Amino acid sequence: MNTPAHLQVLGICGSLRQKSYNMAALRTAGELMPPGLKLNITGIGELPIYNFDVQEKGFPAPATKLRDEILAADALLFASPEYNWSVGAPLKNAIDWMSRFQPQPFNNKPAALFSATGGPVGGARGQYDLRRILSGLGVHWLMKPEVFIGMSASKFADGKLTDETTRKFLTDQMVAFEDWIKRMKRAFA
Amino acid sequence: MNTPAHLQVLGICGSLRQKSYNMAALRTAGELMPPGLKLNITGIGELPIYNFDVQEKGFPAPATKLRDEILAADALLFASPEYNWSVGAPLKNAIDWMSRFQPQPFNNKPAALFSATGGPVGGARGQYDLRRILSGLGVHWLMKPEVFIGMSASKFADGKLTDETTRKFLTDQMVAFEDWIKRMKRAFA
Amino acid sequence: MNTPAHLQVLGICGSLRQKSYNMAALRTAGELMPPGLKLNITGIGELPIYNFDVQEKGFPAPATKLRDEILAADALLFASPEYNWSVGAPLKNAIDWMSRFQPQPFNNKPAALFSATGGPVGGARGQYDLRRILSGLGVHWLMKPEVFIGMSASKFADGKLTDETTRKFLTDQMVAFEDWIKRMKRAFA
Amino acid sequence: MNTPAHLQVLGICGSLRQKSYNMAALRTAGELMPPGLKLNITGIGELPIYNFDVQEKGFPAPATKLRDEILAADALLFASPEYNWSVGAPLKNAIDWMSRFQPQPFNNKPAALFSATGGPVGGARGQYDLRRILSGLGVHWLMKPEVFIGMSASKFADGKLTDETTRKFLTDQMVAFEDWIKRMKRAFA
Repeated sequence: MNTPAHLQVLGICGSLRQKSYNMAALRTAGELMPPGLKLNITGIGELPIYNFDVQEKGFPAPATKLRDEILAADALLFASPEYNWSVGAPLKNAIDWMSRFQPQPFNNKPAALFSATGGPVGGARGQYDLRRILSGLGVHWLMKPEVFIGMSASKFADGKLTDETTRKFLTDQMVAFEDWIKRMKRAFA
Repeated sequence: MNTPAHLQVLGICGSLRQKSYNMAALRTAGELMPPGLKLNITGIGELPIYNFDVQEKGFPAPATKLRDEILAADALLFASPEYNWSVGAPLKNAIDWMSRFQPQPFNNKPAALFSATGGPVGGARGQYDLRRILSGLGVHWLMKPEVFIGMSASKFADGKLTDETTRKFLTDQMVAFEDWIKRMKRAFA
Repeated sequence: MNTPAHLQVLGICGSLRQKSYNMAALRTAGELMPPGLKLNITGIGELPIYNFDVQEKGFPAPATKLRDEILAADALLFASPEYNWSVGAPLKNAIDWMSRFQPQPFNNKPAALFSATGGPVGGARGQYDLRRILSGLGVHWLMKPEVFIGMSASKFADGKLTDETTRKFLTDQMVAFEDWIKRMKRAFA
Repeated sequence: MNTPAHLQVLGICGSLRQKSYNMAALRTAGELMPPGLKLNITGIGELPIYNFDVQEKGFPAPATKLRDEILAADALLFASPEYNWSVGAPLKNAIDWMSRFQPQPFNNKPAALFSATGGPVGGARGQYDLRRILSGLGVHWLMKPEVFIGMSASKFADGKLTDETTRKFLTDQMVAFEDWIKRMKRAFA
């Protein structure tokens, strides 16, 4: 799936809401990416709630599809809302499903994340849980710059991130992400 | 729902698996409780994955039912597996749904938790995430004694916790839990 | 040390810096407290770094003094900067010393916390570590309202918190704190 | 300081106690390392408690010495006890000092950690705080295998780790660490 010209980034949004700020920010991140990166956004809303008894009868099709998308991608970009001071259930559910595949689809994948929230803190607590959880599955996180989008109601319009300062932060993060992906590819070549 | 003789404890198991060790430990905890406590175990497997767009059209029946059970209970007892170093998706999903009700059903509820895992660590990481998440919604946690059930395969038989040392730990926790519930009732009378 | 008119609150600042924003906010909190609370600020800068070999020869005088102040107080108020996404070393050091006393001085103490930081996030990560750490020692935390003071350079003048919005948040927190202390006294009477 | 034959690993022990289990495990790790790694253990007990006012007058000599040792090392190995469910004050203090240097000495350093505790859990909570804290400063952690040494009293003798199962875990971790260091060197060459 890789062309010489592009590194394929799989975008995963933790909110299932149609008008999600996180999804809007994810689409915007795709537009702000440097030319070497290409974003493909997937969905996680079709997965049933994780249950080992279901898994034992065979992984559901949406789980296998997501696994294949992760394996095919050069890197992962997460847009993660914070629900109750942690990762939201939809994203944790996708991760719990993925974690049961062998070989582990997240293993050695470079990844970046940001979060958009209605309140002022911008999702710091949820980001650290997500980092810890996926680190345990072998993800290599871009650490800096961090992007926390607080007070989202004032920063989005028509399904796009319009706040110029935040767009600049996201742009910088995407540039750092490209560099990070290339380094991790070198490490795990 | 309260009689003078019993404090009603609602039991919530984070695993949906039929033969869950956590569910087995939860049933055992109900048997080991002092006479002043009575356990009623509910289910969280019928809840859809949290989505604000669904909520907006009206809370699903399993969410309203769980909310009512929480409100009616004097206290909550969680049996929580650890999935990927944190709270499993099924339990996080139930919490994310409950958190959207006003008034907040978890507010000022006394609660206790334990965890059973296959590996040796016994769920310490998941317990602290669960404590933090529900503290944010107003739960008052029993802090000591902590119960981590590691190496579960050797400690259960026929859907019951049979390991004597662990049964003693659980018994002690249930005694401390009764005292804790009474103190919290006094505080929030 | 309790008079009918006042609940004694011991203030502990996690920064040792003379011109600390957290210390300035702590002093301001003392002024904004309702009449039923009285703040006494202590220091933690004289404690040596925790070492069991030192403890074995006898607790240092600053440790015993702090222990006595905690035991005598009705409640604790922490002003905690965030160093490297967690609790700063000076405050963690004071806690590590206190944790070695028997009986445990923090046990069943009601407490509240806030944090002031230079950056925008306002210390959310550090607050959750502090909550977890002291919960483990028996502290009963006021959960709401939370106070995160970000972008501190613009909110303080002459060693006082001058930003009106933040002063209002702190005032609300102190009112809730008084109610919380009274409830916890009832629970542990 | 690098020879073609050896990668230099700086060992940092979070406990200042003379008979520390963590220090004993660190020495043992040095003996169990593959021939390509060489361990040099440093000390953190001479650092004063972090205070910005002290820093402003000039970094203390033990801080500058530790900074130089970190910069010269190819990788870092932490032996970290768990104090009160988190990183102990001595290690947090060393990190808080190091974090103030520019350029950041921890940046892009590969690192590994283990923990020895008296109780059964083996330090899981402290390890995750340490991972999060140092990730924020640019450390690249070896994720697997994790080593938690619980019930230490039965596993050490004469200042050495003697438990064969645990020695095997540590040996495996050191082999994985060498591979990790080489990969990170490739990434950041």
